[in-house]
Amino acid sequence: MTRPLKLGMVGGGQGAFIGAVHRTAARLDGHYELVAGALSSTPDKALASGRALGLPEDRTYPSWEAMLDAELARPEGERIDAVSIVTPNHMHYPVARAFAAAGIHVICDKPLVHTSEQANDLLAVVRESGVVFAVTYNYTGYPLIRHARDMIRAGTLGEIRKVIVEYHQGWLATNLEAQDSKQADWRTDPARSGMAGAVGDIGSHAENLAATVTGLELEAICADLTTFVPGRRLDDDGSVLLRFAGGARGVLMCSQVEVGEENDLRLRVYGTQGGLSWSQENPNRMEYTPLDGPRQVLTRGQGYLSPAAQAATRIPSGHPEAFLEAFANVYTGAAEAILAGQEGRDPDPLVAIYPTLEDGARGVHFIEKTVESSHSDRKWTDARWSAPD
Amino acid sequence: MTRPLKLGMVGGGQGAFIGAVHRTAARLDGHYELVAGALSSTPDKALASGRALGLPEDRTYPSWEAMLDAELARPEGERIDAVSIVTPNHMHYPVARAFAAAGIHVICDKPLVHTSEQANDLLAVVRESGVVFAVTYNYTGYPLIRHARDMIRAGTLGEIRKVIVEYHQGWLATNLEAQDSKQADWRTDPARSGMAGAVGDIGSHAENLAATVTGLELEAICADLTTFVPGRRLDDDGSVLLRFAGGARGVLMCSQVEVGEENDLRLRVYGTQGGLSWSQENPNRMEYTPLDGPRQVLTRGQGYLSPAAQAATRIPSGHPEAFLEAFANVYTGAAEAILAGQEGRDPDPLVAIYPTLEDGARGVHFIEKTVESSHSDRKWTDARWSAPD
Amino acid sequence: MTRPLKLGMVGGGQGAFIGAVHRTAARLDGHYELVAGALSSTPDKALASGRALGLPEDRTYPSWEAMLDAELARPEGERIDAVSIVTPNHMHYPVARAFAAAGIHVICDKPLVHTSEQANDLLAVVRESGVVFAVTYNYTGYPLIRHARDMIRAGTLGEIRKVIVEYHQGWLATNLEAQDSKQADWRTDPARSGMAGAVGDIGSHAENLAATVTGLELEAICADLTTFVPGRRLDDDGSVLLRFAGGARGVLMCSQVEVGEENDLRLRVYGTQGGLSWSQENPNRMEYTPLDGPRQVLTRGQGYLSPAAQAATRIPSGHPEAFLEAFANVYTGAAEAILAGQEGRDPDPLVAIYPTLEDGARGVHFIEKTVESSHSDRKWTDARWSAPD
Amino acid sequence: MTRPLKLGMVGGGQGAFIGAVHRTAARLDGHYELVAGALSSTPDKALASGRALGLPEDRTYPSWEAMLDAELARPEGERIDAVSIVTPNHMHYPVARAFAAAGIHVICDKPLVHTSEQANDLLAVVRESGVVFAVTYNYTGYPLIRHARDMIRAGTLGEIRKVIVEYHQGWLATNLEAQDSKQADWRTDPARSGMAGAVGDIGSHAENLAATVTGLELEAICADLTTFVPGRRLDDDGSVLLRFAGGARGVLMCSQVEVGEENDLRLRVYGTQGGLSWSQENPNRMEYTPLDGPRQVLTRGQGYLSPAAQAATRIPSGHPEAFLEAFANVYTGAAEAILAGQEGRDPDPLVAIYPTLEDGARGVHFIEKTVESSHSDRKWTDARWSAPD
Repeated sequence: MTRPLKLGMVGGGQGAFIGAVHRTAARLDGHYELVAGALSSTPDKALASGRALGLPEDRTYPSWEAMLDAELARPEGERIDAVSIVTPNHMHYPVARAFAAAGIHVICDKPLVHTSEQANDLLAVVRESGVVFAVTYNYTGYPLIRHARDMIRAGTLGEIRKVIVEYHQGWLATNLEAQDSKQADWRTDPARSGMAGAVGDIGSHAENLAATVTGLELEAICADLTTFVPGRRLDDDGSVLLRFAGGARGVLMCSQVEVGEENDLRLRVYGTQGGLSWSQENPNRMEYTPLDGPRQVLTRGQGYLSPAAQAATRIPSGHPEAFLEAFANVYTGAAEAILAGQEGRDPDPLVAIYPTLEDGARGVHFIEKTVESSHSDRKWTDARWSAPD
Repeated sequence: MTRPLKLGMVGGGQGAFIGAVHRTAARLDGHYELVAGALSSTPDKALASGRALGLPEDRTYPSWEAMLDAELARPEGERIDAVSIVTPNHMHYPVARAFAAAGIHVICDKPLVHTSEQANDLLAVVRESGVVFAVTYNYTGYPLIRHARDMIRAGTLGEIRKVIVEYHQGWLATNLEAQDSKQADWRTDPARSGMAGAVGDIGSHAENLAATVTGLELEAICADLTTFVPGRRLDDDGSVLLRFAGGARGVLMCSQVEVGEENDLRLRVYGTQGGLSWSQENPNRMEYTPLDGPRQVLTRGQGYLSPAAQAATRIPSGHPEAFLEAFANVYTGAAEAILAGQEGRDPDPLVAIYPTLEDGARGVHFIEKTVESSHSDRKWTDARWSAPD
Repeated sequence: MTRPLKLGMVGGGQGAFIGAVHRTAARLDGHYELVAGALSSTPDKALASGRALGLPEDRTYPSWEAMLDAELARPEGERIDAVSIVTPNHMHYPVARAFAAAGIHVICDKPLVHTSEQANDLLAVVRESGVVFAVTYNYTGYPLIRHARDMIRAGTLGEIRKVIVEYHQGWLATNLEAQDSKQADWRTDPARSGMAGAVGDIGSHAENLAATVTGLELEAICADLTTFVPGRRLDDDGSVLLRFAGGARGVLMCSQVEVGEENDLRLRVYGTQGGLSWSQENPNRMEYTPLDGPRQVLTRGQGYLSPAAQAATRIPSGHPEAFLEAFANVYTGAAEAILAGQEGRDPDPLVAIYPTLEDGARGVHFIEKTVESSHSDRKWTDARWSAPD
Repeated sequence: MTRPLKLGMVGGGQGAFIGAVHRTAARLDGHYELVAGALSSTPDKALASGRALGLPEDRTYPSWEAMLDAELARPEGERIDAVSIVTPNHMHYPVARAFAAAGIHVICDKPLVHTSEQANDLLAVVRESGVVFAVTYNYTGYPLIRHARDMIRAGTLGEIRKVIVEYHQGWLATNLEAQDSKQADWRTDPARSGMAGAVGDIGSHAENLAATVTGLELEAICADLTTFVPGRRLDDDGSVLLRFAGGARGVLMCSQVEVGEENDLRLRVYGTQGGLSWSQENPNRMEYTPLDGPRQVLTRGQGYLSPAAQAATRIPSGHPEAFLEAFANVYTGAAEAILAGQEGRDPDPLVAIYPTLEDGARGVHFIEKTVESSHSDRKWTDARWSAPD
């Protein structure tokens, strides 16, 4: 897997945060070369941002529509293979739909889109066009998360009984959106962020992490969303009771107003035969306790980890990897799927691992149902999701 | 405060766990001398247990009724000052009521009694008799918990927004009650434990800890209780959404089936001006983060702690104190209240700190409401409690 | 083991720190009753301190000589069984010698005495009189330290290669002895503390901990002692390279000027088959890694610990025990040895565990050799110790 | 700083470990493009490795000499700007000397060379040619290490008294070099590794980290090096007492036979006004305690960090960065220095931070003196280093 894929980017211009993360993640393993960009919805800014990044002048576009047209006009083999969509949420849908329909592979930030209707439409478009579509639920890229998934698939924890997933932040504890913070501004604006605030921005990561690791299907939820900061237009805190098909129970918490918390995503899973615990802020270790024995501290890079976990790491244990490497793993997983398709071979199942469009659609459904539950007087809101036929 | 109080004990004979804890806690600071006991509901065992402890033969009683009669028959000044009730839960009410009515101070294990009706009756009896009545919510005895309470009272955290309180255990992950475990047996038996399992045994500690530290009043709750182990008769896991008067929100979790967890009681509290986090398994430190500054690690024994926190510790920071010392702080708090009464003086407010009968009654109400909520289809169950007039 | 032993105390009056620790430790398990005391070298203070503790008037003595005479004058069975010596170091020798010679068991704080000559004399006296003599190297009383010792004895770590033992404090980072601190004052005074400062006060704990756990014999040392605080008369920091018989190597560090450190005693031991790590400030856990497998977190109270470790704990895992409980284990170990002697039976080998006079004498030798090495230009100073014939 | 520098690489072919790390570090921030390589000392393997990496056929060289000749033969502006030397240690000197003399900037792995004579020669060559020469003491690239350095420069810790630097590994606890481990093989071979084993491989990192952070100059050392694994030809464990100019003291430990340790590099520094502690395995936090106040947990990405620390990070706090990002910071520092030279401007002092040739030369001197001390009977070996005139 050595030829770098040609990558375009929509969004992520000057002042953005997540665009630089995507670019670094794409570059880290050498599987992508950024060759084109429409880096802002403001044409001038788009062009300036492209120049600042050293993009070729003729592939620095004022708008995503211009980029799509121009790239399609290039000879096959010279156009972009894939596009990264790193705009605020409201632009995910039109951009993703257009590129996917045109046969360009898509790597899209989360949450996928604003509504299940949009998500289902995207699913139909992508089924039709056959492109690879990855959603950057980046936390699933951590090697120990892959190991946790594989432990549970192998039955090491027995039957799962309890899932606790938490995502704690404190950066929105004050009214930052009134203080010229670009990040706070769009995230608290329903028109750009969607119907949910904390639940959409980070709760959806928590949902995806729990689902990816446990493989459990949500059956019903009971949510309490709150807006603590006066004047804020979306929730900044949420707690959700979870019931899974098969009888497991759980709790999902997310908050952006917990002073002192930085990016504290944690997962605990308990089954009949063992329990495990992982924390994103120190991601190179996972605690696992079997039913009859002392707690073990599993560390990234060790030979006792699952093949997929070992395939997702670059350096030996004790040499920590972190956020960007996990993010890169999602990019690398998508690259392997794209390249396998181009080369007419089966993708390496230990590498071609990435959150799919289905993950993204289920995430949108989760957000909708959480908001619905929060407004409801009924205790339980049905949260089952299945892909449309 | 040097004269040891004369203490009797009901329950806590051979094979019990918590009886020895109470005896050690009572002895640790030298404020109590155990002089009498009715240590088991089985007379032979009660007598054998008393002998094993070296109690005087004539104050080793076959039953609590015998103890009460005989002690009251002793001249004033020679009878027991206080009684510790460390039986399974169902015996708390009759024993506590009888001793309190007779003017003997009571230190009673938790949960207080089985029903609010019993609790209210006890409140009436104790108001009438004027005895000191302490309930051993022992985790509130930790010095850093007292400091947390004092920080919040002083407004250091600003207005409280969020409370997360958790109590995780794993020892009941299998059907231990079928395997000759005395501890598991009574705790999973509704007749002796009460209407709730995990919620009564440890969830009530969590409720009390959160209430003690934050001073917030519960307004409404939404609970999901589960029994995971086949054949078990009471819940062994519970998650509860919390709404407090004034707008704060929270989550309470308790479980006894989480494999690998030992006695993992944790508290996080977030306000507009700061956040704090504490964990019982390493209780000599608490993390506190102000809104604008790095996280601080506060440690027991330091001069920057509140006076009540400093009064509750015996040795310098770095020389850890733990469970028994915290438990002893509750005993010492009650001793100060009893002695102050006997000596006709005001108790030292930094020392006479202990969970009261009101705490116990509110805890019973919390258990009842949690069970009610768990059976309800309504999302929110009113959980407000106030002492009867 | 239920009859409480009658205990006298020398030192530990008002303003002392360690006296209260000894009293609590003696009381905690109910094996001792404090009945007599000569609590200060100042007669008035001795009497006032005894009264404050509620000692009987006629056994509150103005001096240790008076106590010894008066107790010996009491009928056998009514005199003290044992004496706790908790004075500044310089008084250990005369007091311990006199009581031991008189047939009274001795529990003496560390470091034992000022010189090896004194230590050897004490050894001779105690061999003659046959009393139990315990030295309160209290950190060896932690259950996980007993487990570590037993793991190494059982060969679980293979052949020991490396020992790192550290004791970090910061409380003497400033010239506290000039600021009316009783604790700092005598500890930095050669006449009372002995020839060493930090090395004597805490380095000796480190030496004893390493020796107790590993069973290794020191062969040679290379020490660098420093006095950092201007005006101080004894070392406040020391680092020592260690060579053990059989080829193991090690490092011992101790300091009392490391700002921010509280009572940070740590031990790491590595052998051919495994490694372990323990830290006193969170003493309920120990990390153990076998040569081929993940790190394990062993916790106090678990059934997989050695019998001696299990015998040294009172409450289940997750309910932390700490400094006072470990200290009490030393007292309980001595009590079992004393009682077994009185009752003409073999002591329970799982309980009668305490640092002996030989430990104390070896500790004094270690201090002497460390000071000698620090002044020497030779790299290695012979540090072998053996009890005199 | 956007134009990527053209980079060549010597060493780092198939089966190597550190080559891939350098390539990722060079690529991570986009400042380098790998365009040429002589990736092995075995010509066939060099060519195969270049192909596997997708290097241009005509710049995949069979030997470093061929690469140097061919690159110099290219028109200026088309040849490599810099070379990364990632061979076993013994090749550093000839390769670095040749490229530096030819005016090509050098990024060289550590330890720099085998002898001070070689180091001094390199210093002369580089002074003559004026190239940028960076040595990848990569751990100094961590943002919090830069903050620690800046805190100490600013006097926040007062006068430094004590430095404890440790580097613990366990991967060489068995005779891995006899088991076909390429990494173990050359590192334990004096001809390729140099005169020292653990001290050269990781002790030199520890020396550099302590020197970089504290700015203190070593005055004298006392070392004890050991070879624990039978048959091994170099030390695999070492402990060193340190004396710094100005009176500070310290301890340096390094070992590769401590079972269970992965890559446990730690630093503690104590001054008259504060202490700090950092651990590489969880590098996003650093503990700092001022003389009068609670411990603080400083985290990467926070606004209270020094400008250089903030400049060395890419993503917000709580989104961990790790080993590769720190390594990339060294590459980025060198890139800034190279580009500034090419562009005739002053380098940005917050970015152009990297370990220099002087650091490398001092490190070689440290290794020599440590080995000398270990063989000496004298306690102290002079360890002062100064650059030759």
